[in-house]
This record gives sequence, structure tokens and C-alpha cells, in this order.
Amino acid sequence: MMKIETLRNVFEKNDQAADQNRAEFNRLDVTCVNLLGGAGAGKTATLEAIVPQLSKRIRVGVLEGDLATTRDAERIAALDVPVVQLLTDGGCHLNATLVQHGIASLALTDLDLLVIENVGNPICPANFDLGEHLRISVLSVTEGDDKPQKYPLLFKNVDAVLITKCDLAPYVNFDIERAKGEIRTLNPTAAIFETSAKTGVGVHETAAWIQSVVRRGRGAVTGA
Amino acid sequence: MMKIETLRNVFEKNDQAADQNRAEFNRLDVTCVNLLGGAGAGKTATLEAIVPQLSKRIRVGVLEGDLATTRDAERIAALDVPVVQLLTDGGCHLNATLVQHGIASLALTDLDLLVIENVGNPICPANFDLGEHLRISVLSVTEGDDKPQKYPLLFKNVDAVLITKCDLAPYVNFDIERAKGEIRTLNPTAAIFETSAKTGVGVHETAAWIQSVVRRGRGAVTGA
Repeated sequence: MMKIETLRNVFEKNDQAADQNRAEFNRLDVTCVNLLGGAGAGKTATLEAIVPQLSKRIRVGVLEGDLATTRDAERIAALDVPVVQLLTDGGCHLNATLVQHGIASLALTDLDLLVIENVGNPICPANFDLGEHLRISVLSVTEGDDKPQKYPLLFKNVDAVLITKCDLAPYVNFDIERAKGEIRTLNPTAAIFETSAKTGVGVHETAAWIQSVVRRGRGAVTGA
Repeated sequence: MMKIETLRNVFEKNDQAADQNRAEFNRLDVTCVNLLGGAGAGKTATLEAIVPQLSKRIRVGVLEGDLATTRDAERIAALDVPVVQLLTDGGCHLNATLVQHGIASLALTDLDLLVIENVGNPICPANFDLGEHLRISVLSVTEGDDKPQKYPLLFKNVDAVLITKCDLAPYVNFDIERAKGEIRTLNPTAAIFETSAKTGVGVHETAAWIQSVVRRGRGAVTGA
């Protein structure tokens, strides 16, 4: 009983902070994206590919979530956009309060789009609202085409799925149609993009989709 | 305060069940391995490669941990060894009580080695003792050579690390020496094996190491 009570409090506290974050984003007209995926799925590499395209047209900032190290923030800083590293000290997900601290260090008034790269974990982060308007999930072909049904939280209730590292598909027996079918079963409306940060495949399409979402405002996003 | 209290209770309850599991393994002279790693890191593929080698010489059983589906248990069952699928229903880690239910469905008296494949998650499972004698972690080259320091929980306090999918190393700029250096900084004594379930590289060595650990008993394992 006590466990359930406390977990409810944890989620309630998070949801309150998330609502505050969302209100602040709305007030300042910033679109916020929560980027989710397993460790090494290619979240940072995807940002390295799409942020330079986006930042030609809109003002982009990034919050980088990690257990330890500032490596990902350094990679994003090299793109010459504002970035803050959020460290969970071993924690398995970002929460809305930590994001609140992060945005206090960013000049939100100077941004059109804030991307929050979550901790590399295909499970826990999906349970925590950060105040985002949109969720994008990343699945790399090297993880396997059987993963959507095995990790359903990562694909339900997201607005887009990026299938990354498609340049490696010939080496790993990844059946793209099987993966897409599994994603569609869990989430019929998500936009799905096949991408490779290495070759650039799908990068333009992904950046254009994100830009269109920022343009058309929030709350009415459906699959592309 | 309430949160801390309750989390302590959760861990205490888990540790009690883990101790019971370990006592049962010791009583029946079964060596238990907890296999950890991210989603799609190659845990099941590694078992598909090494279990046939091990099962020629010792009696092997497997508990398969997943959020959803019985896919992994089906792959292991095809190897003709006893297997039980443990489903967490969305939970991010196995706990010792779920393992207790699993071993009740296995004839432990007929086993020398029990491998528990944990849920694909590089963070949370490391916090939960299942009653195992040994931990083996899996890192795939496609996840990147920077991951040990970024996910330290997965590499501290483990007895061996398998670097998997080494056949893909030429395509992903994985610096094996950098990865090994980071692992050694976190854990100077872990045995490290470079493996590929696809080409068979390192499979014999990994199986031989596991067999040697089963032979020489438990509790005195150091790096190979």
C-alpha cells in the first residue's frame, strides 16, 4: 500500500512540474520535443545531423540527459547552439523538475524549438512527462526488427519514430517492413522516418517534419 | 522522506528474496549468472551461440526476462534447454521475487548452470540482486565505444564484459582499446571478451570461461 501511495506522489509531483514547464513553453512560444531511445541508439548522432539543418531556419536549443559525463553536451555545443547537460547521477530517466533547472540556464525567449535528449533507456523515460509537446523515439537497425513489440512503451504515445543507422541494415538482417508493421500495430498515427546520420538518408525529411511541427504550432500533431 | 523509506523497503524485500534464491542455488550446487545489457545489445544472440557449446558438457537452464512477448524464450527453447519466460509487464528490471517464481517452474536439481537474461536496459537491472553468483554485461560495438563511462552501473561490480557484434566494428568506428580502457577504469578485474555471435569470434573463449567458473565453484571469481 505504501509503495503505491508513494509512487503516486512521485508521478503527481512530476506531472505538476511538467505542467509548469509546458505552460512556460507555451507562454514563450517554444515547441518542446522529448527524444527517447535506448543507449547507443543514435539519439545524439541524429541531433548532430538534423540540428544544423534546423538552425538555419529556426532557433534551436538542447537539453542533454545522461547518467554521467558531459560528452553529449560537448558534441551538441560543437554545433553552435545553446545546450545544457542534465546529469541524473545514475538515475534511469529525466524528470520534469530536473528539466525545470535546465531551462533556467537557457534563454528560452531566444528559442523556437527545445529538444530534450533523454537518458539512453528504452523503458523508464517513457513514464515521465517533462512538459514536452511532442515525443520522438529512436530505434536503430542494429537493435533488431523485433524490438517494437518487446519494448512497447517506447513506441506508444509518440508522434514520430526514427529508424536510425539504416546504412547498417545490409549487415544485420533488419526487416524494415516487419519493424514498421510492429510500430504501426502499437501506434497507427506516428510518422516513421528511415534515417542514417552517416549517409544523410532521411535527415532532410526528419528535419523538415520537425520544422513543420514547430510552424503549425502544438497540440494538433498527427502522423505525416 | 516517505519516498526514501519505501524505496528502502523495496530493496530490502528484494535482497531477502535474492538471499533465499542464492541459498537454494548453493544447496543444489547450481551456479547462477545474471546477464545484463541494453535493448538489442545481443544478449539472446550470445546465448544462442554459447549455450550449445556449454550444454555438451554441463546442464544449462535459462530464465528469460522481458517486458512483453515470449520471443526470447522461444529462441532459447529451440536450443533444447529448459527455459522459462519472465514477463515484467512493462517493468524495467527483474526482481528476485519474480526469479523465485521462475525457478519454481524449472527442475533446478537437473542443472549445473542457470543463466538469467535480464530485461534490456543498461541502468535499472544493475540495482537489483537476483541471487546470482556472477554478473556478465554485454556491450555491442554498435552502441559506441564511449558508453562504459556514460553507463557506469553496467560495468562496475560485474565479473565479465562481452563486447558483442564485433563483426560490425569496421562499419561503426568502434575503438576497441578505448572501450576496454573505459571498462578497466570502472572495473579493473572484469574479464573482457570480444565476440560475434554471427562469425563465432570469441564464442568458444566465452563459453570456456563460463564453464571454468562453474567448475571452480562460486564466490572466488576474478578477471581472466
